[in-house]
Amino acid sequence: MKPLAPSPLAVALGDPAGVGPELIAEAWVRREAEDLPPFLVAGGRTVFEQLASAMGKAVPVIAIEDVGQAQAAFSQGLPVLGAPGPEWHPGQPDGEGASLAYDSLKWATSMVRSGLASALVTGPVAKSLLAAIGFDYPGQTEFVAEACGVAAEDAVMMLAGPSLRTVPLTVHVALAEVPGLITGALIERRSRIVATALKLDFGLAAPRLAIAALNPHAGEDGRMGDEDARTIAPAVAALRAAGIDASGPHSADALFAPHKRGSYDVAICMYHDQALIPVKALDFDQGVNVTLGLPIVRTSPDHGTAFDIAGTGQASAGAMIAAIRMAGECAGRRAET
Amino acid sequence: MKPLAPSPLAVALGDPAGVGPELIAEAWVRREAEDLPPFLVAGGRTVFEQLASAMGKAVPVIAIEDVGQAQAAFSQGLPVLGAPGPEWHPGQPDGEGASLAYDSLKWATSMVRSGLASALVTGPVAKSLLAAIGFDYPGQTEFVAEACGVAAEDAVMMLAGPSLRTVPLTVHVALAEVPGLITGALIERRSRIVATALKLDFGLAAPRLAIAALNPHAGEDGRMGDEDARTIAPAVAALRAAGIDASGPHSADALFAPHKRGSYDVAICMYHDQALIPVKALDFDQGVNVTLGLPIVRTSPDHGTAFDIAGTGQASAGAMIAAIRMAGECAGRRAET
Repeated sequence: MKPLAPSPLAVALGDPAGVGPELIAEAWVRREAEDLPPFLVAGGRTVFEQLASAMGKAVPVIAIEDVGQAQAAFSQGLPVLGAPGPEWHPGQPDGEGASLAYDSLKWATSMVRSGLASALVTGPVAKSLLAAIGFDYPGQTEFVAEACGVAAEDAVMMLAGPSLRTVPLTVHVALAEVPGLITGALIERRSRIVATALKLDFGLAAPRLAIAALNPHAGEDGRMGDEDARTIAPAVAALRAAGIDASGPHSADALFAPHKRGSYDVAICMYHDQALIPVKALDFDQGVNVTLGLPIVRTSPDHGTAFDIAGTGQASAGAMIAAIRMAGECAGRRAET
Repeated sequence: MKPLAPSPLAVALGDPAGVGPELIAEAWVRREAEDLPPFLVAGGRTVFEQLASAMGKAVPVIAIEDVGQAQAAFSQGLPVLGAPGPEWHPGQPDGEGASLAYDSLKWATSMVRSGLASALVTGPVAKSLLAAIGFDYPGQTEFVAEACGVAAEDAVMMLAGPSLRTVPLTVHVALAEVPGLITGALIERRSRIVATALKLDFGLAAPRLAIAALNPHAGEDGRMGDEDARTIAPAVAALRAAGIDASGPHSADALFAPHKRGSYDVAICMYHDQALIPVKALDFDQGVNVTLGLPIVRTSPDHGTAFDIAGTGQASAGAMIAAIRMAGECAGRRAET
């Protein structure tokens, strides 16, 4: 049976000038067809009222005063907590919008931390605008990790789509820096977090981790780089010795082919594009960014604010819907354990 | 109308202990359903006779003495040139088999060079076994390039599947070496070869080249590596100034998503896995390796000898069939011009 979240999900708005709000509204419209759990939005009521009217979305916005009202309200309209807030200016980001995004994130996170809401879903933000108003984190993930008392390096990003799940061990660094950043300790520590989370949140009793190689053909016995033999293979052996079903290093070019994808539950990747190329090629518009290793469940759609198409109705709600559904499923599994 | 090759294709056997021969035989079986042009095999007659019998393939092997007999023979059986040759030992590669593979490659290449055959298709070989018998090339591509009087670095590998075409600018080198190998001259020279070949062999009047970025998010204004701004962007500008429809550098994670794939004819990639991950994820079993920049047409299936499953009937003939079909189409286009 599908696990049920015990309380509503809390959705952080994201930048109100981006596509986040319209995708949240669209998710509410499709809540029954997509079998979504009840959710509320932290702030931004005026934004939703104006976009529903301007975009012709049949989304009654229901102002609620506390989280407890959300479940009952959800079948009738989109529950939005708090004051009306600033107006909707799609495609025109500004400091007021960034402040609203930050407030929404803080509020939604605290609701989930306190147990009033069951999981956190965050809409896309513009990092440079947030930085300009004093948001002192590389991204929302680091804010959430700190709010949860978890070191940022132990909050592990996983990309999950219908075809596969991947975890990039390094993210926003130059490709030239990647080989120096890959250590056995990094691979082991993150892999343990991933294995634990796949059990807890994804219901996999014995998750299978495929560790990708750094070099082409996994280095082919050292002929094309020795990191696979020197660093990655020993880390895989250590994980196996610790009872984790890890394998590799696997040649990355073959790892995402159809017949290989069924042989593991998650691919642990060495760098950003190695992890994101296959997810976006196979599962574009359905990719969910899940933060593993936190005491709370947190997901977000794997796309940006897309200011250039905000308010035009062109953005696909697939990833937002998938992020909401996955957050509900993970929260349900935690509630059962 | 579909272009027709003016003379048969010449197929080099590959290692007779690998899956090459059975895939060639299977391609002949499916020649009508797959609409394949006539082809002959250079050598290995006994191998084909024995595998047809052992694997239960309805493949009459027709011994021919010269290329001119192949077209007429093709509807009745698989035309194989030359002496009976060594026996078939699937999964048991040896020096005799490697010699046969080398002889077959030399012979097929010379037939195409002389114009007796219209295009070259090569089966998979084991490089270490070839090296042991004195084959002094990194792979078949370099042999063919030399036989054609083309510098090996100007014989450009392109992977082509139904979903996309990619060209890796660096191939079998450690990832750590890649940033140092990417130069503007390399990007420009290879891109010009690719653009010319897509016109000549693939019938694209104005091929669109998408140049992938080296760093995540194309370096994001230098925050994650400066190669994209310093090296790749000027090369793209130079290509455009020379009248080539080049664009980029494009963030590689998004470049292979469905909505992006329609915006270019080939992705020029910076390293092996960047080019091969998307092709194998999307077009596994149908990927063709095409060598661009040669005076002859040459293709091969994008897989290895797979000694472990040779003779078992498990190997998919999809890529071999695609390689034969593509070679015929490219040769037909050259014949028309």
